[in-house]
Amino acid sequence: MTKRVYLFGEKKADGDGTMRNLLGGKGANLAEMCKLGMPVPAGFTITTECCTEYFNLGGNYPKELEAEVNKALAATEAIMGRKFGDTKDPLLVSCRSGARSSMPGMMETVLNIGLCSATIPGLIEKTKNPRFVYDAYRRLIMMYSDVVMEKAEGIEPEDGFGIRVQLDKMLSDLKIAKNYESDTDLTEDDLKKLCDAFKIRVKKVLGKEFPDDAKAQLWGGIGAVFKSWNGRRAIAYRKIEGIPDDWGTAVNVQSMVFGNMGNTSATGVAFSRNPATGDNNFYGEWLINAQGEDVVAGIRTPNPLNEATKTDHNRHLESLERAMPKVYKELDDIQQTLENHFKDMQDIEFTIQDGKLWMLQCRIGKRTGLAALNMAMDMIGEGLIDEKTAVTRVAPKQLDEILHPVLDSNSEKKATVVAKGLPAGPGGAVGKIYFTSHGAIAAAARGEQVILVREETNPEDVEGMRICDGLLTARGGMTSHAALVARGWGKCCIVGCDQLNFGTINDKRVMIINGKIYEEGTVFSLNGSKGLVYDCSIATMDATENKRFVEFMDIVDKYRKLGVLTNADNPDDAAQALKFGAEGIGLFRIEHMFYGKNSDEPLSKLRKMIHANSVEERVSALEELEPFVVKATRETMRVMDGKPVTFRLLDPPLHEFVPQDPEKQAELARELGITIKEVRERGEQLHEVNPMMGHRGVRLGITYPEISSMQFRAIFRASAELQQEGLHPHPEIMIPVTVSHHELDIHKVLCDKEHEAVEKEFGFEIPYKYGTMIEIPRAAILANKMAQSAEFFSFGTNDMTQMTYGFSRDDINAFIEDYIKNKILPYDPFQTIDEDTVGAMVKMAVEKGRQTNPNLKTGICGEHGGDPDSIRFCHQIGLNYVSCSPFRVPIARLAAAQAAIADEK
Amino acid sequence: MTKRVYLFGEKKADGDGTMRNLLGGKGANLAEMCKLGMPVPAGFTITTECCTEYFNLGGNYPKELEAEVNKALAATEAIMGRKFGDTKDPLLVSCRSGARSSMPGMMETVLNIGLCSATIPGLIEKTKNPRFVYDAYRRLIMMYSDVVMEKAEGIEPEDGFGIRVQLDKMLSDLKIAKNYESDTDLTEDDLKKLCDAFKIRVKKVLGKEFPDDAKAQLWGGIGAVFKSWNGRRAIAYRKIEGIPDDWGTAVNVQSMVFGNMGNTSATGVAFSRNPATGDNNFYGEWLINAQGEDVVAGIRTPNPLNEATKTDHNRHLESLERAMPKVYKELDDIQQTLENHFKDMQDIEFTIQDGKLWMLQCRIGKRTGLAALNMAMDMIGEGLIDEKTAVTRVAPKQLDEILHPVLDSNSEKKATVVAKGLPAGPGGAVGKIYFTSHGAIAAAARGEQVILVREETNPEDVEGMRICDGLLTARGGMTSHAALVARGWGKCCIVGCDQLNFGTINDKRVMIINGKIYEEGTVFSLNGSKGLVYDCSIATMDATENKRFVEFMDIVDKYRKLGVLTNADNPDDAAQALKFGAEGIGLFRIEHMFYGKNSDEPLSKLRKMIHANSVEERVSALEELEPFVVKATRETMRVMDGKPVTFRLLDPPLHEFVPQDPEKQAELARELGITIKEVRERGEQLHEVNPMMGHRGVRLGITYPEISSMQFRAIFRASAELQQEGLHPHPEIMIPVTVSHHELDIHKVLCDKEHEAVEKEFGFEIPYKYGTMIEIPRAAILANKMAQSAEFFSFGTNDMTQMTYGFSRDDINAFIEDYIKNKILPYDPFQTIDEDTVGAMVKMAVEKGRQTNPNLKTGICGEHGGDPDSIRFCHQIGLNYVSCSPFRVPIARLAAAQAAIADEK
Repeated sequence: MTKRVYLFGEKKADGDGTMRNLLGGKGANLAEMCKLGMPVPAGFTITTECCTEYFNLGGNYPKELEAEVNKALAATEAIMGRKFGDTKDPLLVSCRSGARSSMPGMMETVLNIGLCSATIPGLIEKTKNPRFVYDAYRRLIMMYSDVVMEKAEGIEPEDGFGIRVQLDKMLSDLKIAKNYESDTDLTEDDLKKLCDAFKIRVKKVLGKEFPDDAKAQLWGGIGAVFKSWNGRRAIAYRKIEGIPDDWGTAVNVQSMVFGNMGNTSATGVAFSRNPATGDNNFYGEWLINAQGEDVVAGIRTPNPLNEATKTDHNRHLESLERAMPKVYKELDDIQQTLENHFKDMQDIEFTIQDGKLWMLQCRIGKRTGLAALNMAMDMIGEGLIDEKTAVTRVAPKQLDEILHPVLDSNSEKKATVVAKGLPAGPGGAVGKIYFTSHGAIAAAARGEQVILVREETNPEDVEGMRICDGLLTARGGMTSHAALVARGWGKCCIVGCDQLNFGTINDKRVMIINGKIYEEGTVFSLNGSKGLVYDCSIATMDATENKRFVEFMDIVDKYRKLGVLTNADNPDDAAQALKFGAEGIGLFRIEHMFYGKNSDEPLSKLRKMIHANSVEERVSALEELEPFVVKATRETMRVMDGKPVTFRLLDPPLHEFVPQDPEKQAELARELGITIKEVRERGEQLHEVNPMMGHRGVRLGITYPEISSMQFRAIFRASAELQQEGLHPHPEIMIPVTVSHHELDIHKVLCDKEHEAVEKEFGFEIPYKYGTMIEIPRAAILANKMAQSAEFFSFGTNDMTQMTYGFSRDDINAFIEDYIKNKILPYDPFQTIDEDTVGAMVKMAVEKGRQTNPNLKTGICGEHGGDPDSIRFCHQIGLNYVSCSPFRVPIARLAAAQAAIADEK
Repeated sequence: MTKRVYLFGEKKADGDGTMRNLLGGKGANLAEMCKLGMPVPAGFTITTECCTEYFNLGGNYPKELEAEVNKALAATEAIMGRKFGDTKDPLLVSCRSGARSSMPGMMETVLNIGLCSATIPGLIEKTKNPRFVYDAYRRLIMMYSDVVMEKAEGIEPEDGFGIRVQLDKMLSDLKIAKNYESDTDLTEDDLKKLCDAFKIRVKKVLGKEFPDDAKAQLWGGIGAVFKSWNGRRAIAYRKIEGIPDDWGTAVNVQSMVFGNMGNTSATGVAFSRNPATGDNNFYGEWLINAQGEDVVAGIRTPNPLNEATKTDHNRHLESLERAMPKVYKELDDIQQTLENHFKDMQDIEFTIQDGKLWMLQCRIGKRTGLAALNMAMDMIGEGLIDEKTAVTRVAPKQLDEILHPVLDSNSEKKATVVAKGLPAGPGGAVGKIYFTSHGAIAAAARGEQVILVREETNPEDVEGMRICDGLLTARGGMTSHAALVARGWGKCCIVGCDQLNFGTINDKRVMIINGKIYEEGTVFSLNGSKGLVYDCSIATMDATENKRFVEFMDIVDKYRKLGVLTNADNPDDAAQALKFGAEGIGLFRIEHMFYGKNSDEPLSKLRKMIHANSVEERVSALEELEPFVVKATRETMRVMDGKPVTFRLLDPPLHEFVPQDPEKQAELARELGITIKEVRERGEQLHEVNPMMGHRGVRLGITYPEISSMQFRAIFRASAELQQEGLHPHPEIMIPVTVSHHELDIHKVLCDKEHEAVEKEFGFEIPYKYGTMIEIPRAAILANKMAQSAEFFSFGTNDMTQMTYGFSRDDINAFIEDYIKNKILPYDPFQTIDEDTVGAMVKMAVEKGRQTNPNLKTGICGEHGGDPDSIRFCHQIGLNYVSCSPFRVPIARLAAAQAAIADEK
């Protein structure tokens, strides 16, 4: 029989920490903590498999579940010494979600389950605290009606008028009416009346009574947690994080303990090391007389955990270390035990009830890229982990964040800080402020840099948080939703910035800081490492001069097998890539010399060539163009001295270089001494219906061999000139858009001719390699033949994806979102290589190519070359290198090393 | 040791008729005729392998060849009783080419080899005919200097001033000076002096002496034949005919016999049946006192072979049957023996020397499509061949010719015949006359229908003959170059039309018939079946009502395994295809209802839909469009009653339907009640960079499901309406441009919904099939998944070729010729499927698809479906059907039957 329910409590558990797929991360770790002898409120976990079963049964529980739950509940009661639903001394429980992988705030939780007219008197009697009991009851009603009765039933209230909002307003109206400042001012009588009013409102709004039965509440809670797996927010989050829809969530039913039973009670969240910086200090926040949700929701600014980690922001607040030294000592021991046990930084939740410490959760803590890097290096030093483990501890995309810009400190000094908050996500951000997720998304779609400003964030904001450059909130602590999510994504983030106020002026929302009014769209700058807010634009700079980063990357390179080259077409980019550890250039696009700065002169020569009316005219124009090509190729090879530089011959169709607007056409006509009509006619003649599949790449060289010959000649001359200076250029010549080995053979003849001539001219040997892009399916299929002439293959997986999917990259915007949304495609295949089709073709081509030429060098250039998943695939199929943009070189190095380490396992 | 030289003569031979790959067609058949005991002048064949060897040795003979040739020459001398180079009784020989497959006139021949100062006196003494000897000598000098000394040496004379032209002019100047009418008026003395003058001119023009040594002449001849394999004309011909360049030619060195030794000598060409009509009559032409080249070149109008085949054109000329009854009887017996031996119509060449018959050649005769059909049917009747052989006797492309139009007889009756000629290629042609191959090619490139008119044709004209619609010559007989080539290609052709004269008026070439002057570009009509020429345009009609054609196709269908469907989008095309034997419609393109006649109304509804601003507006426009779709699909299904009709959902991107020019935009704006600006903006919004890979096919239905739903609904309604009438429609719905089974699944839900609704509305079941186009590589690679939802695959190999090659069909004109010319591609992959890449993908997809669904129906639609080579491939990989345009249906049926028969072997 399938076991669906796993008990834990009192130093024993049915499960353990290895069972996260089945029990979810939370459930597995609760079991593990029990086994480690830690004080965990007893309870049980309903498995993720049962969740899947539930959905497969169309939202019904498997019939055996009830008996299993009853059995586990009885065992829990036995451990805790109280009975669920008991009128004398009732046990209350929570229902919490717990998936394999943390999805903070994306699924539902119901606390205080078991409170009803039958149990309330007993609990009052037992606790002697009727105010506490009614407060717990009003929390239960608020949560349950929202989560179980409304959301889980799929009721979609009008925007901003769900039951939760209504009950919140009733609470707040009451406080206003009574002139209370805080929830704690509410009396037992207030709360009792409020509960009654809540239940009436629930009945009215949702058409159903709030259930007055402990068991009914329990099953409602279990079902709501299951259903929340397929809630809109959870689905959106999984889409962003790439979590499969069929994993399901476990449900943890656990005895309630209360941090809000007075001043000997408290609740808190802590990390075994600082998740923002990686510093090896026990770090956390706590609130006296509070429930856990109060810390996470960021409603009250929490206290620091200990003296060592106090900051300017919270120095005035009492630490747990001072307030409850014994409990703090116990907690500190536990966190050390957990870190040593799991050999990684732990994120823990605890509650202190009447002076007794209870552990509610432990898990691997999320951290910034910087923290990940520092912790990995520290833990090697401490002997906690080995180098290979350290390499796997930094996610490749976190490097992106480490390499992200910070505010330039000189510029920053000159600016005035308008507000201060908690430094929740390090780095710098500059952008226009928007006050809603919706507004931020729209602005980002317009191409703006965006800072999302919120009073506090909630899971509804995730998409806006995802796209913003920086995040600023008025409330919340370092462990608030905003801080957790921002850190997870490596965003620059400042939270708890309480100088921020919001209002509406002329129907427009505005932000007010110290009386100054800011509209949406105003440029702000954030220093997320220090929590400083500026109402101006500040210059940014990159953060590559980090010594630990360099040390870490040295370790990374020890385990990497895949070469990492870069795509660069000028000396500046080449130098930048070298700094990032590029081992050469995998893609130098000759046409890039006709774009951007200093391109006017070569572009005019190119256009002259395009407008030539005979081979002679073309050759003469090409001769004028040649010195520019020599210079461009030479100066980049100079920077890359001693390393390969792969030159791709002119790739785009010629019409891309012909001016379209009448003014420029007239200018060109003047320059070339021809009529505007001739310019226009040549343009029309070159026009193509589908230029992506038109007269481009090697096809140009087949029709106009002189164009290829000039490029060969220029590259060899550039190389020879450097050799004369005593340098060591390694040119590799790459023929693009090939479909047949005959194209390569024909070009090899042209190439050899120029090579021979230039060698003769200079009087010494000029080494080079000859290869091709494999980017058209036919070339991949015939790779065994292509390898007869090619010494290397560079896979153009971007174009190959276009051909394999029949997706024009320039045109897919019209439908790609529909494809992702409808789950037709799991992701954009231009971002991550589709292993089953494009990847399979690359794999086949490598195998076929090596059958012909065992020494064939193979690599990939283009955007997949900087994507960690694609890099892993490239490693697996045995490519020699990937080539990516300079800023992605470290990411590629790390992804390659991780792939090699994963391979060993 | 490799045997390079094969002897034949006197009823024996080293080789035989099966060795055509090694000995060439001519050599193999000479050997076979010897073995059959026929009178063949002795000689030997140098193998095609030796030709390849010769080229591989850079144009040098393998060293063993000389000894082998000498040995064979000695054996030949022994048989013929004369010695080559002998001063008393010299043997003369010819050197002729002979490839595996006939290439009429494309390679070189040298006759009379062995005449030189040493042998001339002996031959005069022996023949007592000095005039004959000097005539033979001047022919040798003319041929040898042209073929061996000029062409084979690669000397490219200025246009029209090669050595041959110069010697011809000397001959013609002499005749004018002497006031001679014909070559036969030349005296011994004239010829002797002419030979001397020729030799001086040869020396002067080519810088070398004409070789006065028999052996030197022989080797010169052998080399020239080898080299002519790689001559410009031969290469052009091979390109057109698809003959591989590496086959090489054999060289046949054969004892000369002379048809020009007086009035007991003659020469002729004959066919065992009529090659134009297929009539079972021994048919041919002969000339008294002439060499074979005189017949083929068409210089003199030849005599008919026998009484039975005389025509109005040659009734006045004496037949061989009457002139030399004994020889005729011998020849007639031989042709019957040959036909019975080879079981096919024979094309034979013979010479009568001094009353003795010599066979110079026999081969399978070329024939028109009509003749091929008639002969195949006759030979079945005669028991000469079986049905399967008969099926293989008509080339699929010959059917095209049978189905070609003829002049409409009613219109023809009303027109006046301006000239009459020999009916060399049947059928009718209407077009503008051009007098040069060059002019004809240019006109055809402009899209004109062209009639090429020449005094006589020569191999330099082949490209013009290839592209013309009809061919008309002033000279030559039924076996002239023009007639042979035209018949080979199924062209309408009239030869020997001696009323034609040519002149030049105002620097323009003109044609003159009975004093009436015609300039280039004048429209003429030809009746190639009767040899009638008209100077006006006459209506044409198709020739499908041929009873034998129907009988033949019935036999064809007995052996065919592949289904043949058609591509048709309207009732007319469907009816035409049915007449041609289509078994259903494999491709009905819904978008075709928006093009052409009666499309205004549906197009305006479609445009309204495109300009809709909301789902509601779109749905409403689609509702207006639906009745048109119902009608279009219903009426075609009505014609195809009982047979499947495959409807492809709307395929092109929407911008194809948006008007581009301002006037039409204004009109549309008026119609839709929106501004021109809105029309234009929508157009710009829909514009795509690469529309081939854009928002089209199923992608439209993913974004706008209502577009697909309307089409589903319309098809089911159309079907239901026919069912109500008692008909049996078989709609099959095909989803285009798919890349994922999810697209199919999502559409299946839409389809089922409409299906259910329409079934409910009508109250009965509506059968249909659901399938997809496989045209994007990803769909082919994932075919196992596609087959989960698809009941059939229809391969869109046109688009698949675009994707696999990265060739935009609309844009390849810029380079495809360069690709063929440079041998990068052996043929245009859009005409014939590339088996190694596109074909391999289709094969893989079929296998993968059938793994999932063993009953999966598979077919191909698009142009490859009408290409015989591609059809053979489709048969081989086990497709269920091909679908092609109506006019290609019979071709597909035949190609499919031939593939099945070839399979059995």
